[in-house]
Amino acid sequence: MSDAEPIALDPPEELSISLGEAMFTQRAIRRLDPDRPIAAADLKIMMDAASKAPTGANIQPVRMLVVTDRAKIASFGELYHEAWWAKRADAYGWEPDQEIPADSPYRMPALLASEMAAAPAVVLVFSHDAPGVSVYPTVQNLMLAARGLGVGSVLTTLHASVMDRVNDLFSVPTDVRFHCCVPLGYPRGNFGSTHRLPTSGTTFLDSWGSPPPW
Amino acid sequence: MSDAEPIALDPPEELSISLGEAMFTQRAIRRLDPDRPIAAADLKIMMDAASKAPTGANIQPVRMLVVTDRAKIASFGELYHEAWWAKRADAYGWEPDQEIPADSPYRMPALLASEMAAAPAVVLVFSHDAPGVSVYPTVQNLMLAARGLGVGSVLTTLHASVMDRVNDLFSVPTDVRFHCCVPLGYPRGNFGSTHRLPTSGTTFLDSWGSPPPW
Repeated sequence: MSDAEPIALDPPEELSISLGEAMFTQRAIRRLDPDRPIAAADLKIMMDAASKAPTGANIQPVRMLVVTDRAKIASFGELYHEAWWAKRADAYGWEPDQEIPADSPYRMPALLASEMAAAPAVVLVFSHDAPGVSVYPTVQNLMLAARGLGVGSVLTTLHASVMDRVNDLFSVPTDVRFHCCVPLGYPRGNFGSTHRLPTSGTTFLDSWGSPPPW
Repeated sequence: MSDAEPIALDPPEELSISLGEAMFTQRAIRRLDPDRPIAAADLKIMMDAASKAPTGANIQPVRMLVVTDRAKIASFGELYHEAWWAKRADAYGWEPDQEIPADSPYRMPALLASEMAAAPAVVLVFSHDAPGVSVYPTVQNLMLAARGLGVGSVLTTLHASVMDRVNDLFSVPTDVRFHCCVPLGYPRGNFGSTHRLPTSGTTFLDSWGSPPPW
């Protein structure tokens, strides 16, 4: 495996969506259809697209663990739920499964924490201690390719308190570092436009604080 | 600026390239045409596309400094050259501007170190200490959008020994953290297919080491 030769691949026809459409409608999708599995061929397209992202010195350090086994996802979902609430306990002192107001930005993330166990697929992203600069472009390609295939995704992390059990669940070696996890599924909601700060305010020209010409 | 309201944007027509073509032909482009500037309208498209990437809790922490002023790029290029060779000195004990064999993977990066001063545009990526998970998906969107516009790019970093001078050059506040820089220019070479490890070897199914069904 590790001595495989690098290969070139043609762009898959399935990724015919325009780049603009894919990027400008990449919503975080947390409400996943639990009853619609993702075809292995589509998972391969996502992995191939992910592999095309740049990495420092082209070392390609990312290793993806794709989980489609329902029992394993159910076990992982319990750990994800625990981890999500442990993060909120750390940050805000919240109790597990406490009520979250309908207008809170945490409402949908908390729903995902409860529903992760039913996700049709989950991708866990690892490396042997690569820096983020060589990992997250790859993850973004994965999620853009998912969008291109009509599959929803969201970039999530875990809490340190569950990592040993996650690693045990998937037989991950101790010298491997976890980066993030990406649940995948066909959306119960819709893709659509996202709202962002205007780049006239987040971008400078030639000197810090100097506005761009737009 | 910081109190600007988030806005929605339609996908720009200029990003009509297919997602697959953009991702599967995103080469690192280091030989840039110094005589062909990049239109401000195209820079805006790249920044808007970058802004569409996901960030943790949608905090949108990335601030981009776009440099098109030729004198500033020339000054930055000197610092980049010094930084690039400082990294090689740290890693291999190399002398600045020493000969690099034609078949070395460092040949083109060293060429860029010498030519950065003539790049038509350079984007410096900053945040107030955001983690890589909230920065590099944004950078990847920027580079994919550049590809979609026919503009070459490559993700590069600096060496700590030049950071104070870089920050001085662009009046960057001391509480802001540098992440990476992305030179932009029309390629002297061509876009084209890239070679990567086959995902049959970098991807596992359901358990570490278990091969995927492809």
